[in-house]
Amino acid sequence: MKFTIQRDLLIDSVQDVMKAISSRTAIPILTGMKIEARQHGITLTGSDSDISIESYIPAEEDGIVNVEDIEEGSIVLQAKYFPDIVRKLPEQHVEITADENLKVTIRSGKAEFSLNGQDAEEYPQLPKLQTDDSFEIPTDILKSLIKQTVFAVSSMETRPILTGVNLSLSESKLTFTATDSHRLASREVPVSSSSVQFSSIVVPGKSLNELNKILDDTEETVEISVTNNQILFRTKHLNFLSRILDGNYPETSRLIPEQSKTVLHVKTRDLISSIDRASLLAREERNNVVKLTTKDGNILEITSNSPEIGHVSEELSVQSIEGEELKISFSSKYMLDALKVMEVDEVKIDFTGAMRPFVIRPVDNPAMLQLILPVRTY
Amino acid sequence: MKFTIQRDLLIDSVQDVMKAISSRTAIPILTGMKIEARQHGITLTGSDSDISIESYIPAEEDGIVNVEDIEEGSIVLQAKYFPDIVRKLPEQHVEITADENLKVTIRSGKAEFSLNGQDAEEYPQLPKLQTDDSFEIPTDILKSLIKQTVFAVSSMETRPILTGVNLSLSESKLTFTATDSHRLASREVPVSSSSVQFSSIVVPGKSLNELNKILDDTEETVEISVTNNQILFRTKHLNFLSRILDGNYPETSRLIPEQSKTVLHVKTRDLISSIDRASLLAREERNNVVKLTTKDGNILEITSNSPEIGHVSEELSVQSIEGEELKISFSSKYMLDALKVMEVDEVKIDFTGAMRPFVIRPVDNPAMLQLILPVRTY
Repeated sequence: MKFTIQRDLLIDSVQDVMKAISSRTAIPILTGMKIEARQHGITLTGSDSDISIESYIPAEEDGIVNVEDIEEGSIVLQAKYFPDIVRKLPEQHVEITADENLKVTIRSGKAEFSLNGQDAEEYPQLPKLQTDDSFEIPTDILKSLIKQTVFAVSSMETRPILTGVNLSLSESKLTFTATDSHRLASREVPVSSSSVQFSSIVVPGKSLNELNKILDDTEETVEISVTNNQILFRTKHLNFLSRILDGNYPETSRLIPEQSKTVLHVKTRDLISSIDRASLLAREERNNVVKLTTKDGNILEITSNSPEIGHVSEELSVQSIEGEELKISFSSKYMLDALKVMEVDEVKIDFTGAMRPFVIRPVDNPAMLQLILPVRTY
Repeated sequence: MKFTIQRDLLIDSVQDVMKAISSRTAIPILTGMKIEARQHGITLTGSDSDISIESYIPAEEDGIVNVEDIEEGSIVLQAKYFPDIVRKLPEQHVEITADENLKVTIRSGKAEFSLNGQDAEEYPQLPKLQTDDSFEIPTDILKSLIKQTVFAVSSMETRPILTGVNLSLSESKLTFTATDSHRLASREVPVSSSSVQFSSIVVPGKSLNELNKILDDTEETVEISVTNNQILFRTKHLNFLSRILDGNYPETSRLIPEQSKTVLHVKTRDLISSIDRASLLAREERNNVVKLTTKDGNILEITSNSPEIGHVSEELSVQSIEGEELKISFSSKYMLDALKVMEVDEVKIDFTGAMRPFVIRPVDNPAMLQLILPVRTY
């Protein structure tokens, strides 16, 4: 195998693929990165068996030559050293060769690295997903869907299914839902007409977090295809494959109250600042609990009390308060997590009493929803 | 106690003082921050008994009012919460009051924090240093002295005296020296005529690191005074007091070779990049060792070899090589540490054979010196 490649393209590609490589894996060869050279381009592959990432660098693209002097072949390189080596190479041109003894040489300027490679034949074959049954959404929308839901997955392995985000696609609507049973985050977007339908595909939160890190915030589309146990996200130069969680995702729609007794309209940023301050004293012994009380004249009072440390209270003018008076306690962390991902100026919060879950939505977008269970404090 | 203060001034001051406060201290009240209000201004104090920091905010300065409505008094506040509270206050004006029950109230805009304080009478008195016997140097020079030496102190408690930087002042020359017995860093600067003289004051490396973080990179002067067991660094609004280490600092001048057999002139940045690359494969099993070999035609070869991982070699054109041929091995970490703090374009390196310490100096400044012991590899 032999090729000469532009360093900066290689750096980006290596960085993406590294996100799937773990130094702790049961299959030793998966601590390495597979490099495959074909006349049409170079493919890098990394996998921890939960997630697999392939990054492709075409030899030529838009009339620009990225890779030259290609002799086809493949090799697996120790991923521990390769990214730092590539990043610190002195020149833009990088020549990589592998000989029949699996010796890999990386040359750039006057620097020459010689590394012990491993046989690419020993690297596991990634499952080939049939991509006829696929649908597309813009990358920036997919990133929003992930950001607005994935934080609410459970971090506890006691109910493994809740560590994933539930995806469903029907009637040209794609929905992401996550819950750890104390809160729930859900977002729905329209997708262009597609023949694909599925009611519940649960993708590990970790996979979606890594995918979100790799994807650029562009309007280019991502093609998504699903089989029994794998989901593939495909962009122009990237294949991101994740396993799907086994098990039935709980029915969540019945958790969402249909009526409300108190309705708040409030500026998101004001509420974030206020809750953030109140949470300062609530961090440890109080499990982050803050209390919200409605007052006359469109005033909210946000308070927190830790007998050992002290007390904080703040009055906040809001856009409107309708319905019954309310005193409710909740986790400031859950509230801040929810408010921070909404990316809207103003939210509407529907309460149905101090002991019932409440729902936060953007004032102008009912397709996004954050539900939080209150905390019983008195 | 009561006063109203500008939030941003308070944030800076609290941040400085926090550098002396540790949550792990044998004296519980030292986990707190002392606040003292006098008509002329506010003083914040923090201490971990090794380091004490006082930051002063004058009530008025250059015609600008910083603090208003002062009622004199003092209190000690839990340092764990105070910095975050101050940083997140909603308005620029902050009112702080303490009542006779040691209840502290912090008000800004519509936010109100109520905290339990502690009696300032219980806070240890800082030693008052007599400052007649003092000398001054510009802050930026002091910061350079610290940066260029403190990294070479020992991190091992086996010889506690080596965890400090040795300061000496004689014939209007101030010298900082640090060594961990594998390397030595030394820098000398002239100081304006001063009556103060001392041959060896050893200041803990940790103290100097904290001092360096607090001091701004200005040309304003720092006043330094020394007693038997304390050293005080004083700027306009800051008192930084550190204990001095007990014991005799070793005589280091005899370690520095007076002759050399091979002399290199090399661009600092080129050498850094090259050693940095060579060190990539030398990290673990090889204890960071790289090898330098002189070649004909002003060429250096930098290599490193880790049988398990691979080999790296690079040729580097240098300004000049004079004297005997040389093959020498050393710690790439020590070499990079030394080169990175020198802040000069070109360095001169004097070698006296593969088994003897070598000395790195700026080409145009013999007052700065970095000495490194080689590693025996064959």
